[in-house]
Amino acid sequence: MQFAELLDSLEVQEIHRASMEILEQVGIRVQNEKARQTFTRHNCQVDSNSHIVKFPPQVVEEYRQAFSPSFTFKGRNPDFDRTIPGDRPVIVTASSAPNILDPVTAKERRATSHDMANIAFLINELSGYDVFSISTLADDAPKGQFSLSRFYPALKNCTKPVRGNTASMKDLLDVLELGAIVAGGKEAYAERPLITHHCCPVISPLTMDVDSTESLIYLVENKLPAYGTIVPNAGLTAPMSLIGSLALGNAEFLAMSVLMQMIRPGAPLIYATLSTVADLRSGIYTPGAVETALMHMAHCQMARFYGVPSGGYIGLTNAHSNDAQSGYESGIGTTGAVLAGSDMLNMGGLLDSLLAFDFAKAVIDNEIGLMLKRFVGFPRVDPDRLALDVIKQVGVGGSYMENSHTMAHMRDTALLTRIANREMRTTWEDAGRPDAHSRALKQVQTILGRDNPNRLPNEIDARVRGRFAGLVAGEARWPTI
Amino acid sequence: MQFAELLDSLEVQEIHRASMEILEQVGIRVQNEKARQTFTRHNCQVDSNSHIVKFPPQVVEEYRQAFSPSFTFKGRNPDFDRTIPGDRPVIVTASSAPNILDPVTAKERRATSHDMANIAFLINELSGYDVFSISTLADDAPKGQFSLSRFYPALKNCTKPVRGNTASMKDLLDVLELGAIVAGGKEAYAERPLITHHCCPVISPLTMDVDSTESLIYLVENKLPAYGTIVPNAGLTAPMSLIGSLALGNAEFLAMSVLMQMIRPGAPLIYATLSTVADLRSGIYTPGAVETALMHMAHCQMARFYGVPSGGYIGLTNAHSNDAQSGYESGIGTTGAVLAGSDMLNMGGLLDSLLAFDFAKAVIDNEIGLMLKRFVGFPRVDPDRLALDVIKQVGVGGSYMENSHTMAHMRDTALLTRIANREMRTTWEDAGRPDAHSRALKQVQTILGRDNPNRLPNEIDARVRGRFAGLVAGEARWPTI
Repeated sequence: MQFAELLDSLEVQEIHRASMEILEQVGIRVQNEKARQTFTRHNCQVDSNSHIVKFPPQVVEEYRQAFSPSFTFKGRNPDFDRTIPGDRPVIVTASSAPNILDPVTAKERRATSHDMANIAFLINELSGYDVFSISTLADDAPKGQFSLSRFYPALKNCTKPVRGNTASMKDLLDVLELGAIVAGGKEAYAERPLITHHCCPVISPLTMDVDSTESLIYLVENKLPAYGTIVPNAGLTAPMSLIGSLALGNAEFLAMSVLMQMIRPGAPLIYATLSTVADLRSGIYTPGAVETALMHMAHCQMARFYGVPSGGYIGLTNAHSNDAQSGYESGIGTTGAVLAGSDMLNMGGLLDSLLAFDFAKAVIDNEIGLMLKRFVGFPRVDPDRLALDVIKQVGVGGSYMENSHTMAHMRDTALLTRIANREMRTTWEDAGRPDAHSRALKQVQTILGRDNPNRLPNEIDARVRGRFAGLVAGEARWPTI
Repeated sequence: MQFAELLDSLEVQEIHRASMEILEQVGIRVQNEKARQTFTRHNCQVDSNSHIVKFPPQVVEEYRQAFSPSFTFKGRNPDFDRTIPGDRPVIVTASSAPNILDPVTAKERRATSHDMANIAFLINELSGYDVFSISTLADDAPKGQFSLSRFYPALKNCTKPVRGNTASMKDLLDVLELGAIVAGGKEAYAERPLITHHCCPVISPLTMDVDSTESLIYLVENKLPAYGTIVPNAGLTAPMSLIGSLALGNAEFLAMSVLMQMIRPGAPLIYATLSTVADLRSGIYTPGAVETALMHMAHCQMARFYGVPSGGYIGLTNAHSNDAQSGYESGIGTTGAVLAGSDMLNMGGLLDSLLAFDFAKAVIDNEIGLMLKRFVGFPRVDPDRLALDVIKQVGVGGSYMENSHTMAHMRDTALLTRIANREMRTTWEDAGRPDAHSRALKQVQTILGRDNPNRLPNEIDARVRGRFAGLVAGEARWPTI
């Protein structure tokens, strides 16, 4: 596919040059000492008072040569391993919502580890999703087990690659230990790391924090899959200009990625973004805005310029319910992303500007994900698909309905939708006018009403529970009460 | 913008060659005698028994050289004139729904000329729409005034270009006379034809009818703006294959367009399509399917190969209400179209697989249209937009919120939405949880609660009513009762 491109090739170079100028003249404030030492060792100028690191252009140019062109997500079931860009578009849930819309009361409340178990099971069963990014926080986490209470229900109920962030180095080490037990030992885990870590060390504008940076460094040193997302917000933490915000965000991507290459050349990464524009009527941020789609597309172009996989949070609506807005914001954003060549879309399951998970939304987004894959899977021209013999046989004014070619291709030519209603209005009215939300919720109930056949085997589960006393149950069970 | 392309350039040529083979070996059944005579005169092989016309490749190649690269829509107010591809994307309502969702009862019923007056006024006021394609039929049309009852309320209440089809040659001549009175006389109309005629002479597979063909010939002969839409339905009237259906539809486009050029070389046209795939579980057609988007995109590529403007019916949902499905089907289809380079999108206002108009949907689609224009309007890289001086000034960790650059660009950088809700959940809950549908309906009420300041001047209206006795009132008035 030829991707849609908003910038011409000279403009891509201008953005790169502008980012280099930002890194050289403004620099990045690096709050993590190990990162500052690394930058110092690799010929950046580090101010010991302000902690501002400035990057000579040749340093950035040198280390970006080490960027890896691909990134692999591994799952408990190797059939679900996905490598981008080859397996694009990789459809991922969006993550870390503090709240959930309770599937019984429909009211918003804090999400729990029990919700997480249900969500993980659901995502495992929905064929549109490739990777499960841990969708919510867990309000019921026992003291000291904040991250375990999210990763354990996820790994227990989902055999697809699991992606998530951890709150501290202690949490990271616990989660890695959990992962190793699930994988069958440390060596097995080193071979097949089942968790892809998401770290966001960069805070716009132009700052790297202490803790996420520490985690990222540790993971890269230990050859574990990790990447960060760049999150500039034009008007608040970036210029009120798509172009200026792009140059700033791109500089931040380069700083983080160059650090990774300084630690371990060739460390895989993803050019991942959630680049938004503030609605300055209220100061609120707008993941569902068309500008978020435009920024995602432009960042994808920069990623291609650097020869790295791209993606990020996209199609995430500001809507509070599964109404038309939630549909078109998700549809427009994700279609823009896929047609611009985005490899990985964190797009599934959230309403409310990433604040709330909704089971029905996850099912709706699954169908959107299946639709998006059709753009990439557009068929090639070949004699069977051209079907000239069939066209000659049917001739003028005939019908293709009962042709054997039609019968042979009725399942592979078009996506047979489950959420999109195609009935006659009268049939739909007789059924009580179910909207997409209620159809989706019904599919949730069908899936989660069963037992999870891919639950973590009991003996491994026992090993996990033996190691981490007081762990949450992590069992999928529907309905949540 | 570099457009998204699903076919590579060799495949585009293969589709063209396949279409040429279809036209040469299968041909088109042409039921209109004048069209057959025209084809005969221009060296096609016409079978006088079967009425099948076969096209030697050199004939098609010769006449496609006459294709015009642009098409202009003219309106009662010249400020609303639009030329494609220059003014792309031109956002148009979708058309000819028999039904309407009553804005008071929310029930489906037959649409009337009174609805048409309200719709025309609404579309005139919504800035996302460029062209008003007559959205519904008029069930209250007096005998002999079927088309007048649609065009009169439209022209009376909308100063944007009006597009529509007529049911017969008699209706066409009446409507042209109406147009001439509105324009201020026959000469004025010849100079500024306020109506763009839509004719669908091709019935898939490979048939041209009597009446629409007659109308198209008349309009082209008289230098009046007209074009047709190609409507293959894979699995029923075309092969169950996106590629085969593309080759067939493309052949049909060529046959119709070559006829137009034989009549008047250089006659402007649009490569317009509504190419769908049947859902063979039920035989129902699927304007909202992702395959409809894929077909639209592929046809756009063929249009570029021929150097003609492109477009058609796209983003038209199968949903029965303004739920998430209606949103994502409209969002995905139209975004695919715009990023593939489609110039004209018949996308607004319809639910129910083109069977029912809905006022709220028209307002929602208006906002989608405004979003789509942002893809095409992506800013160019320049020093003000790069804002390097601002980035240097704000530095590491600062805020852009109160920067003068932010103030200067807060209105032009991002679309300030009216339908997309960006409030906090609590604010939204306190307001009674209004969904996109109810927010849109409120906007309809605000607009249609006013008098139409652009209603046709009384003296011209009197002339129209004097000429056509018994004409419907055609007055916008809200609420419809």
